Amino acid sequence: MISFKQRDIISIRHFNKEELLYILDLAKRIEQMEHTDILRGKVLASLFFEPSTRTRLSFESAMNRLGGMVIGFAEPGVTSVAKGESLSDSVKIIEGYCDIIVLRHYLEGSAQLAADVVKIPVINAGDGANQHPTQTFLDLYTIQKTKGTLEGLTIGFLGDLKYGRTVHSLAYALAYFGAEMYFISPPSLRLPGDFMEALKDRKVKCHENESLMGISKRLDVIYCTRIQKERFADPVEFEKVRGIYRLSKAMLEEFGIKDDLKVLHPLPRVDEMDDSLDATDFAVYFHQARNGVPVRKALLAAVLGAIE
Amino acid sequence: MISFKQRDIISIRHFNKEELLYILDLAKRIEQMEHTDILRGKVLASLFFEPSTRTRLSFESAMNRLGGMVIGFAEPGVTSVAKGESLSDSVKIIEGYCDIIVLRHYLEGSAQLAADVVKIPVINAGDGANQHPTQTFLDLYTIQKTKGTLEGLTIGFLGDLKYGRTVHSLAYALAYFGAEMYFISPPSLRLPGDFMEALKDRKVKCHENESLMGISKRLDVIYCTRIQKERFADPVEFEKVRGIYRLSKAMLEEFGIKDDLKVLHPLPRVDEMDDSLDATDFAVYFHQARNGVPVRKALLAAVLGAIE
Amino acid sequence: MISFKQRDIISIRHFNKEELLYILDLAKRIEQMEHTDILRGKVLASLFFEPSTRTRLSFESAMNRLGGMVIGFAEPGVTSVAKGESLSDSVKIIEGYCDIIVLRHYLEGSAQLAADVVKIPVINAGDGANQHPTQTFLDLYTIQKTKGTLEGLTIGFLGDLKYGRTVHSLAYALAYFGAEMYFISPPSLRLPGDFMEALKDRKVKCHENESLMGISKRLDVIYCTRIQKERFADPVEFEKVRGIYRLSKAMLEEFGIKDDLKVLHPLPRVDEMDDSLDATDFAVYFHQARNGVPVRKALLAAVLGAIE
Repeated sequence: MISFKQRDIISIRHFNKEELLYILDLAKRIEQMEHTDILRGKVLASLFFEPSTRTRLSFESAMNRLGGMVIGFAEPGVTSVAKGESLSDSVKIIEGYCDIIVLRHYLEGSAQLAADVVKIPVINAGDGANQHPTQTFLDLYTIQKTKGTLEGLTIGFLGDLKYGRTVHSLAYALAYFGAEMYFISPPSLRLPGDFMEALKDRKVKCHENESLMGISKRLDVIYCTRIQKERFADPVEFEKVRGIYRLSKAMLEEFGIKDDLKVLHPLPRVDEMDDSLDATDFAVYFHQARNGVPVRKALLAAVLGAIE
Repeated sequence: MISFKQRDIISIRHFNKEELLYILDLAKRIEQMEHTDILRGKVLASLFFEPSTRTRLSFESAMNRLGGMVIGFAEPGVTSVAKGESLSDSVKIIEGYCDIIVLRHYLEGSAQLAADVVKIPVINAGDGANQHPTQTFLDLYTIQKTKGTLEGLTIGFLGDLKYGRTVHSLAYALAYFGAEMYFISPPSLRLPGDFMEALKDRKVKCHENESLMGISKRLDVIYCTRIQKERFADPVEFEKVRGIYRLSKAMLEEFGIKDDLKVLHPLPRVDEMDDSLDATDFAVYFHQARNGVPVRKALLAAVLGAIE
Repeated sequence: MISFKQRDIISIRHFNKEELLYILDLAKRIEQMEHTDILRGKVLASLFFEPSTRTRLSFESAMNRLGGMVIGFAEPGVTSVAKGESLSDSVKIIEGYCDIIVLRHYLEGSAQLAADVVKIPVINAGDGANQHPTQTFLDLYTIQKTKGTLEGLTIGFLGDLKYGRTVHSLAYALAYFGAEMYFISPPSLRLPGDFMEALKDRKVKCHENESLMGISKRLDVIYCTRIQKERFADPVEFEKVRGIYRLSKAMLEEFGIKDDLKVLHPLPRVDEMDDSLDATDFAVYFHQARNGVPVRKALLAAVLGAIE
């Protein structure tokens, strides 16, 4: 019997295949529900030590739509951190004000640290370049919903595969489902070698490429990521690669694609994905972003013990 | 049959006389209601890409008092705009988290753009120097409430008539009601000529003056506006005019006024209106500010289809 | 018959012994209640012109948990203050949006000023170096809860006794209960002389010391405070004293303590109190912080007339 009651959601790696499917199924059930108040009287502390509007609003909407309330902050400027307080002290105090903590922090390991010092559940909404498990849940939910299944897909990851935590987490999770994976990036942004090895150990068929050309027609899903300037110490290096992986409708039509291809992107995008894609049937990234709400509803309700 | 269900509120110019009166009547009915939960389960996204505490809190209070919830941000620093995301992408994603968007943005046309890309209703809470329709609704509501009618009034607009969007919108709306208008400003801040022509085409009796002297005793309403430093490229120009249009009780008594004069101001004021006015019967600007709540309640409830 | 209905909470000095005990008793009753909605339909304006996450979140949690809603801001950057608006104008306008105001402001006297210009209740959440009455209520509540009584205790105040408003307010309140007080600080941060005289006039046995050594074993309660850098014009002066009053488990064991000693701290702490204390029975500062919720619930409910 699977139960998420009182569990922390720190890394997608803490969940096995059955647990992943359990949450996706819960999200689907919650999405079909009419108005419900199952979190009435519950308070979420939404602690964003680093801004992330999309993630924050999506969590807050999920909480509100289930009848719960939200307290918190959207940026660190207004916190006692400026006075030198430790994260451990901050969350131990805030624990007394709420039933669950959603934490976004710029330091790797911060969510685990918070979970270790408080008794209430902690959901990691991104800890530095490390983990962002609810993003992966919504990526999986989107793939399952738009492809009909998670089993046996061929997926191409495009863009920043070195620093992109969303890619690492999604690839890790999809390995449970017999996926074949293409990793397409400039040489300087290749998937870390040990991560590739770990996938191969789990029997994933992995390929590396520098372009979508010749590959696109084999893919069921393209997962495109932003090449983030803030990940580069050297801006010259950034300028070299930013234009290369710009996805457009024309490029996909030229290279050839499957009829039922789906293109995902964790957003925000800057110029790595052309507006020309937006009106196509394969563009599902806006739906993907919106899937954050049912998935986060499912996680909030599950860890607060309001649904099984 | 007038219905505002699912309509966007972008500019006061999109509404005819009957529609204006319909919303004012709704505001009056809602103000007389006891506690009501007609927006229970609804979520408002309050997106302030430019700070405006008064407008934001008034919208959020209106939503909360009707039983609805609010998510959002109070300033752009915490948004993906900093990462280069387009407004179009931002609102398309946030659309998935809420039932209605209230947008404040520093760029003219932004509210219309948002309304064009999302399916849910958008309320413009100010787009640059362009439109701020809910301010005009509350101005009209205040005049109707304190004068007993909107018909046939003589109104003086004072201060910054060139850049003041509140003046343009209110004058536009009052033209439906047979108003006579005095525009009192320094020469550099006169009402734009084409706007004056448009009023005259609508049969409004218009006058221009550089002082209230000799005019004040003819007025039913004075609409005073702040001369905003940020509208001037040259601070010297600002210093020249800031003191000239400072309204005080003594000045009005010296110049002469009607017994039932009412003085409005969109607030905040700095030094263009003296504290000495506050305790007089003609000062209604604090009531005016508070009228933002019933008017915004009416608009939220109407576009969300919760009331007719 | 004691009633707090419609009263402002500006300074702990406005309340007599019976009123203090009344609120503490109310907090206790509220803490034992199951889920309650007694503030349903009420709106709190939480106006923080200076950041204070702990206080703000604790008030917002208290309001939410009683079924009420919260509007407001966490820092002054997003307000009309930037446009030059007076505090008096700001609160008079916001009064129209809410049922109660919680105000944090960097200027002494600001809360009283706000209370003087609005008709709804105002709770002072800290006005500069002056008053922070809800902190004192939660300090008293914590002492009463952990010691079983407020009567006849021996309490040591440690750290910054010159600038620490929490110390002044708590000492003032405890003087009602026959406390004996030790004031332990570096010479430059001694309790102000006139404050000491006022305590002596109220028959409080007062002592001054520069170290806990020889004193700690007489104390029922140690109230430790942060030596705040921002209170020093000269950083050299700050560096001289910061390390001296660092409380640790080893130090207390060496100096000797009562078995049932309790250590309080208003938090945040930086390095004036060692982590080694946290796991001891005498460390109650995290409980103290959490007691902010029942105490603020009691005050909100009492001034809004929802409970007696």
